[in-house]
Amino acid sequence: MNKCSFGSDNHSGVHPLILKAIEQVNEGFCFGYGEDEYTEGVLKQIEALLGGDCKAFFVLNGTGANVISLASFLKPFSTILAPSCAHILEDECGAVERFSSCRITPLPQSSGKVSPETVSEHLKFGDQHKVQPAILSISQPTEFETLYSTKEIQELAELMHSVGGYIHVDGSRIANAAAGLGLSIKQIIADSGVDVLSFGGTKNGLLIGEAVVVFNLKKNQNIADQLVYIRKQATQLYSKNRFIAAQFEAYIKDDLYLKMADHANKMAKYLEQKIKESSVLGKGVCFTQNVETNGVYISLAPLSDFQLEALQKKYIFYVWNEKIKEVRLMCSFKTTTEDIDGFVKDLEEYLV
Amino acid sequence: MNKCSFGSDNHSGVHPLILKAIEQVNEGFCFGYGEDEYTEGVLKQIEALLGGDCKAFFVLNGTGANVISLASFLKPFSTILAPSCAHILEDECGAVERFSSCRITPLPQSSGKVSPETVSEHLKFGDQHKVQPAILSISQPTEFETLYSTKEIQELAELMHSVGGYIHVDGSRIANAAAGLGLSIKQIIADSGVDVLSFGGTKNGLLIGEAVVVFNLKKNQNIADQLVYIRKQATQLYSKNRFIAAQFEAYIKDDLYLKMADHANKMAKYLEQKIKESSVLGKGVCFTQNVETNGVYISLAPLSDFQLEALQKKYIFYVWNEKIKEVRLMCSFKTTTEDIDGFVKDLEEYLV
Amino acid sequence: MNKCSFGSDNHSGVHPLILKAIEQVNEGFCFGYGEDEYTEGVLKQIEALLGGDCKAFFVLNGTGANVISLASFLKPFSTILAPSCAHILEDECGAVERFSSCRITPLPQSSGKVSPETVSEHLKFGDQHKVQPAILSISQPTEFETLYSTKEIQELAELMHSVGGYIHVDGSRIANAAAGLGLSIKQIIADSGVDVLSFGGTKNGLLIGEAVVVFNLKKNQNIADQLVYIRKQATQLYSKNRFIAAQFEAYIKDDLYLKMADHANKMAKYLEQKIKESSVLGKGVCFTQNVETNGVYISLAPLSDFQLEALQKKYIFYVWNEKIKEVRLMCSFKTTTEDIDGFVKDLEEYLV
Amino acid sequence: MNKCSFGSDNHSGVHPLILKAIEQVNEGFCFGYGEDEYTEGVLKQIEALLGGDCKAFFVLNGTGANVISLASFLKPFSTILAPSCAHILEDECGAVERFSSCRITPLPQSSGKVSPETVSEHLKFGDQHKVQPAILSISQPTEFETLYSTKEIQELAELMHSVGGYIHVDGSRIANAAAGLGLSIKQIIADSGVDVLSFGGTKNGLLIGEAVVVFNLKKNQNIADQLVYIRKQATQLYSKNRFIAAQFEAYIKDDLYLKMADHANKMAKYLEQKIKESSVLGKGVCFTQNVETNGVYISLAPLSDFQLEALQKKYIFYVWNEKIKEVRLMCSFKTTTEDIDGFVKDLEEYLV
Repeated sequence: MNKCSFGSDNHSGVHPLILKAIEQVNEGFCFGYGEDEYTEGVLKQIEALLGGDCKAFFVLNGTGANVISLASFLKPFSTILAPSCAHILEDECGAVERFSSCRITPLPQSSGKVSPETVSEHLKFGDQHKVQPAILSISQPTEFETLYSTKEIQELAELMHSVGGYIHVDGSRIANAAAGLGLSIKQIIADSGVDVLSFGGTKNGLLIGEAVVVFNLKKNQNIADQLVYIRKQATQLYSKNRFIAAQFEAYIKDDLYLKMADHANKMAKYLEQKIKESSVLGKGVCFTQNVETNGVYISLAPLSDFQLEALQKKYIFYVWNEKIKEVRLMCSFKTTTEDIDGFVKDLEEYLV
Repeated sequence: MNKCSFGSDNHSGVHPLILKAIEQVNEGFCFGYGEDEYTEGVLKQIEALLGGDCKAFFVLNGTGANVISLASFLKPFSTILAPSCAHILEDECGAVERFSSCRITPLPQSSGKVSPETVSEHLKFGDQHKVQPAILSISQPTEFETLYSTKEIQELAELMHSVGGYIHVDGSRIANAAAGLGLSIKQIIADSGVDVLSFGGTKNGLLIGEAVVVFNLKKNQNIADQLVYIRKQATQLYSKNRFIAAQFEAYIKDDLYLKMADHANKMAKYLEQKIKESSVLGKGVCFTQNVETNGVYISLAPLSDFQLEALQKKYIFYVWNEKIKEVRLMCSFKTTTEDIDGFVKDLEEYLV
Repeated sequence: MNKCSFGSDNHSGVHPLILKAIEQVNEGFCFGYGEDEYTEGVLKQIEALLGGDCKAFFVLNGTGANVISLASFLKPFSTILAPSCAHILEDECGAVERFSSCRITPLPQSSGKVSPETVSEHLKFGDQHKVQPAILSISQPTEFETLYSTKEIQELAELMHSVGGYIHVDGSRIANAAAGLGLSIKQIIADSGVDVLSFGGTKNGLLIGEAVVVFNLKKNQNIADQLVYIRKQATQLYSKNRFIAAQFEAYIKDDLYLKMADHANKMAKYLEQKIKESSVLGKGVCFTQNVETNGVYISLAPLSDFQLEALQKKYIFYVWNEKIKEVRLMCSFKTTTEDIDGFVKDLEEYLV
Repeated sequence: MNKCSFGSDNHSGVHPLILKAIEQVNEGFCFGYGEDEYTEGVLKQIEALLGGDCKAFFVLNGTGANVISLASFLKPFSTILAPSCAHILEDECGAVERFSSCRITPLPQSSGKVSPETVSEHLKFGDQHKVQPAILSISQPTEFETLYSTKEIQELAELMHSVGGYIHVDGSRIANAAAGLGLSIKQIIADSGVDVLSFGGTKNGLLIGEAVVVFNLKKNQNIADQLVYIRKQATQLYSKNRFIAAQFEAYIKDDLYLKMADHANKMAKYLEQKIKESSVLGKGVCFTQNVETNGVYISLAPLSDFQLEALQKKYIFYVWNEKIKEVRLMCSFKTTTEDIDGFVKDLEEYLV
């Protein structure tokens, strides 16, 4: 294990309260595959948190959540619209396409976001030679940890709904979005008209577990009813489901999810501040994205390859764009000001 | 949570040593997706346990293990041969077909087992109008918790290899098979020529986690090299992989996996013995399968529907064949003689 | 080219009136992909012939027709129910599964037919671990050229509809069924409640071309509307569609399709009669299926392997069941009484 | 039928010699599914024409040819690289993805062509989170009827081979490329190292029929051996195969394919010349692509929408880019100088 990592928020392990919750449901025997009352109860708590007009399903991981969310809304000749930097395009080895056989159409993006104008250009229907747009998939926060405003999400949702389509939010870090915007997930997602959410947990302190949540049940009830078969086919049905339920119960109790996300976001802001206060900005280091949740993107162009590697060994982080030595620094519930102070200090020393 | 369940070995939760192992790797930060030294080390331990000529991969659950194991050996025009009662046919909602697009050809079975003669009849190749047999998938123990001898597995493996095919073992309860046969998994699997194993953990005391193990690397190295992509596509790559690694390390340390399986098997034998010693066999209750590992199959035909339901509520178990009121009684590492004594006593009372 | 073949009705080439029709639409230029008025007009003629409450689509071949017909009615977690001898199971190399990722559940059959009782046993819904039955696929005539009565089809259709399911008829030889039953295709298909028909042409004198016809538009309009995308994805959209339209126009004009099918059926009856009148029945040759359309099934068990091969070379036919030397003798619009007389005479000589 | 069309070369119907060839093989009976000596013989003629080190397979249409060509070289986690304007991306309704479940990665293009530099940037391997590049698919001539030089194809082939990949040529108009370059298909394809060719026929005077040709058999023999199963699964196996064989025999006899393509190319050049000689270039009409085979691309920006539609009705052609009123004018073996003279004259009159 490493002392410190800015590599990913999933490097940080499990929050103690989550581990404790797992232990607490380990007494006795329990029906499997989510067919127990306890799991049902926790799902109801999640649905209440998200506004009530929705149905929640536990799944194992983020790729699974995205695959199931999207596949539930697709016909085989559909295409998914998504920003070209989308996780489903860049980081899931074609899992969505393998499972659904549908194309993901990459859209031009800016800071990870797509605009209604860009989406509109791709909303063409009725030509038998062309795949038919069915659902827009966005990430909130984006792949660069920036944020859509709720107004922006509403506009995208309305646009998709106006042509009979749907909108999916990859919310593997949705708690960070909520903390960043100072809004509830209900306000960001349900009130914006989103049809389906990948509600992340693993990146924010859970051992394992995400939820798929289908909204707008008046319209989407059929899709919600059939989701259990798709979950099973996608290999995402967990036999000992109570252990995900227990984690989620602890996760939303007393807003633990928000507290962890808020800490991560604050650490990112602290890191941004420390860099601004340091001498490195004057020496060619620059920010490449706004810091809006728990990720900080900077170009370390002035560092030699050797220095960059040395720094990476000590602190762990990934290079996002090799050409400009852009790196991503992720904070999590476990990140400390000491880690950050050390990092900025070392960076300054390299650039003396 | 229930006091007692014979419904499935996955009703029984997590062994305390497994939970402890999870806690112990929660310090500090760790690379994700299995790309850490700790995970690699545990995989090497598993490979050593299984004879060395193999490559192991962690996955999340049994359906995932089967889907990945099989898909790795298939061409799109292949067919999988499997007994008609196979878990991949009966209990996975078509996950293998959804992912691979390949047909599973159901073969006649007896006590869950297929014979070389039956398999031979389906080994026809070269007709462009027909799917081409590629891999035989068997379960050890079978879906009725009975056992193939190693000789039987060897014969099936040789048969498949003689036509350029492969053999997969669904070993979601492979530890119970090892305990039941008094042999190591290496002896049952590697020494029999098996090409790929779904190495189960969740049904035998893990929180979550299985392994896919590819054998015969001289022949199957290419397949092993490509398995990581298939695992990711099948949504079975776990970001916080160290927590599966930790469980498996504890699982194989001091033969914990064998001890748990052996306890489960012994409880099944104890249950069989208690039924034999009771008065119920004389009253129309009968065994429908041999008790060879941790499952007991009996027909409760003399019970009324009402009585059967009452008994199910108290002890939890599933009806396997409604026509003859055949029920399956599964034992696990947590099953106690008290539970069994109570069950047999209650059954006797119904049949006075 | 061979002088004679009982191997398949597709060995017989193209009817002269069909070839003439192709030539006649070769003047000038024409929009492609069926987007021309002429093609639309012929489709309307077909729809009128089949009762009006339907939408017809041209496709290229029988496997394509079946794949598209079925895929249009499937969800990805659906299963197709079909007799174990079905063409989609036995002769299409898994094309339906490859395209749809859905399982075909093989049902026990008798003379190629399934009973409502058998189908009923498989109509179970709601278990998240199981594929969900969606559509029954039968062949009319069956794979043994026997016939369902319209009452039998009605019962199967009602059964499927009663559970929200559908029924497909593989009618690659539907004209032979119509001629055999003395009923119109409308009476057999539309009036029986069938949801989708593979309307065959190639086996009955066309150069190339089949139609997929969706019925019950009040219920199935959405499915019909989306079929063009599925047709394109299944590689079955023909650029020079007018040449299929022209064939179908000639095919249904003056009942050419019925006349060709009737001739083929009569030749099968003639062959049956000749065999009955010959000496071979007394020498161990026997009929293995009723002769109801254009196929004759007999066991040639008394022939040596050598004799069987010699006969096959001269007349071309296929062995259907090697164990009892059951052979299939197919008649077509081109079959002559001379061919049949010669075959029976030669057979008699072998068995002197 | 229309008097004239520049809409597509597939609007032009069938060459009389091709129709005659079909008639000539309609005598007698013939084995189906390409399992006859005649079909085998014609395939051998094609293989000889293409240099000998190859195996040819008849298929029905261009989408089928592309799907089979590509699917034969893919693993399920592969990605196809193709110019963003590729027919497989723009005009086949996702057929390749539906059948293969693989992503097509769109590459930036210029005049329909991709450069080795662009391809190189996408040749990254070994990251378990990413689809793995397997095959480059280019069109020759391109989607804008421009041409790669053989040197350019060689470079792309070498690049793909250097990383263990393959190269496919969508040659739906390969005869036009041969006529345009003054080279044989062997020189363009086999000698350049291409692995698999969609050898088009339907767009150049056939009734129906294309061939898939696998090259470099020393390396690709296994792929060629398995192609028949993929062809059947892709619904592209034609029962009355002799009728495609007959067309191809006539097609390559006395270079009919080259003669038809050469006529089409010459008509495009004539059209280009007529436009250059006319007054329209001075009035805002301009060429948007070089005329290298049988397509002419011009911007008709000065025309009003009303005028454009009127012209389209009389001559039939498609708008390629609405923003600049770019239209595509395709010539075929049937195009006449009278059609062209009329078109240019009418265009001039609109722009007086």
